[in-house]
Amino acid sequence: MVKVAVVEGDGIGREVVPVARDILAAVRPDIEFFDVEVGYGRWERTGCACTDETIADLGSAAAILFGAVTTPPDPGYRSVMLQIRHALDLYANVRPIRGEGVDVVIVRENTEGLYSGIEWTEPDRACTVRVVSRRGSERIARYACTLAKSRRHLTVGNKANVLKSDCLFVDICTAEAARAGVSCRTSYIDALCLDLLMHPDRYDVIVTTNIFGDILSDAAAYLVGGLGMLPSANIGDRHALFEPVHGSAPDIAGRNVANPVAAIRSAAMLLTHIGDPASAAVVEEAVGRVLGAGIRTPDLGGAAGTREFGAAVLREVGRG
Amino acid sequence: MVKVAVVEGDGIGREVVPVARDILAAVRPDIEFFDVEVGYGRWERTGCACTDETIADLGSAAAILFGAVTTPPDPGYRSVMLQIRHALDLYANVRPIRGEGVDVVIVRENTEGLYSGIEWTEPDRACTVRVVSRRGSERIARYACTLAKSRRHLTVGNKANVLKSDCLFVDICTAEAARAGVSCRTSYIDALCLDLLMHPDRYDVIVTTNIFGDILSDAAAYLVGGLGMLPSANIGDRHALFEPVHGSAPDIAGRNVANPVAAIRSAAMLLTHIGDPASAAVVEEAVGRVLGAGIRTPDLGGAAGTREFGAAVLREVGRG
Ligand SMILES: CC(C)[C@H](C(=O)O)[C@@H](O)C(=O)O
Ligand SMILES: CC(C)[C@H](C(=O)O)[C@@H](O)C(=O)O
Repeated sequence: MVKVAVVEGDGIGREVVPVARDILAAVRPDIEFFDVEVGYGRWERTGCACTDETIADLGSAAAILFGAVTTPPDPGYRSVMLQIRHALDLYANVRPIRGEGVDVVIVRENTEGLYSGIEWTEPDRACTVRVVSRRGSERIARYACTLAKSRRHLTVGNKANVLKSDCLFVDICTAEAARAGVSCRTSYIDALCLDLLMHPDRYDVIVTTNIFGDILSDAAAYLVGGLGMLPSANIGDRHALFEPVHGSAPDIAGRNVANPVAAIRSAAMLLTHIGDPASAAVVEEAVGRVLGAGIRTPDLGGAAGTREFGAAVLREVGRG
Repeated sequence: MVKVAVVEGDGIGREVVPVARDILAAVRPDIEFFDVEVGYGRWERTGCACTDETIADLGSAAAILFGAVTTPPDPGYRSVMLQIRHALDLYANVRPIRGEGVDVVIVRENTEGLYSGIEWTEPDRACTVRVVSRRGSERIARYACTLAKSRRHLTVGNKANVLKSDCLFVDICTAEAARAGVSCRTSYIDALCLDLLMHPDRYDVIVTTNIFGDILSDAAAYLVGGLGMLPSANIGDRHALFEPVHGSAPDIAGRNVANPVAAIRSAAMLLTHIGDPASAAVVEEAVGRVLGAGIRTPDLGGAAGTREFGAAVLREVGRG
């Protein structure tokens, strides 16, 4: 028995997560799901988007399947997702970008950088401290190098020509790569963003700091059909959360048009994480066959609904 | 008589700037050019890449035509370009992206944000302060709104869902847009990066903070054939510097293969700045006709050399 916490969240999270969950249940009947409510909907109802108790619930699961949350319009509010990443110390945000001629994994540091939370306002300016710590850099470098070792090579995205805080990051990553025997290059994040778009075949594993990874992965989504396709894992030493890279997309929510591929692929990453790469492969291949058969949601130019796409994957999983 | 300072700099700066300069000289025989040496070459020769005297020289010109500089491999070194932007208070970095179905201008704040220079290292971490000031935001917002008023609309690129420092930036930009009667939207920088790639027609003027503008403009270069095509202006209240967005590209330097379009277009922006939009249009149209005739450098799939491309534009300018 494996306990998986399920957070639908808001907007299209409520549509894509049930699809992904059904597929998980089909390949792994031994998973015991339990629902956890966080996000805007809960905030509207109770004045609170996520409590310490919620975090404890999430922490009790072997893995978390997460949808997306809308940010409440409250200036004092801190993003639920940031709160969870922080509380569960999910330091590696892993974002595979796969498609025609593209097989890249972005490993984004997920706890510090510009997301330090160290901020203040003065009468005439507002400041945020970008923090690059030795420990934070070492553990993300180690994660990325372990991954790169089983793949091809590593690129360290940085802006060390401007930010001294990135000199530390680059030094630690290149040292860790040398130790691990991983071939390693460094690249300035602006140039990297363009070169990844122009020559995705030049890249394999990319490690970078928090907000650079945030932007780079969205840009890279262009290569594979947009955000509807990108899954992600938020990994810590003791917990792991799997979520589509896309947000709650209130503009298209409730219309059965959201692309569930990102959520389904996140579920596949969850399967690998709980030690079942075989089931993960079954799910990935099922998604590939359904897309290959031309069944697609509107964002990819198709006419399939979220549920219909999910049902098609479920059928393929049954055959797989 | 108009005084224009010319900085070739390093690498391909030494190849593309002479081309752009010849074209400027052809359309405006009254320009008096004077050379200023800065960059890596000078640093190797003299141990110094740029002095206060250099800055004063640059400051004496009506406008500066700039190539690109290589960053010396010295940890204590601060980028020459940052030094010049700072010393001449060139607060608006204006980057037009034009091509098939794309007509966007990125207005990048050019003096603060993560480029504050406020940095320190502790034994176990390195920090950089991201500074968003009221004055800095107001003047860039005003610049962007003035531009947007003569065009269509404004998008404010930000990450206010994470950075409190961006709440200030967004507030100031939207207030300034309201005052100027400019239609204005806000967009998170990660989503903006992707949406600009997928739907460039949705965008017109985009204003954003320093490093976000740096990354966004490189990503946007993908839409128009890469960095070889993108010019930029660095504008202050009293000085202005025009440079290609690309760097010194030591890997391809000295082989007569660099694309001079970005430098030529930067020269066209310089012409507009000194009050001669008619000559700027002549140069822009000449570039368009040469590209249209299939004369292209290798980065665009052609076989023309830097000098040959320049000569072709010069001929067209003569006809224009
Ligand atoms: C919603 C936001 C706080 C989040 C982030 O910036 O990390 C999102 O963009 C992401 O990429 O997961
Ligand atoms: C060379 C570097 C300091 C510079 C910057 O980051 O501004 C460059 O990338 C640019 O875009 O002009």
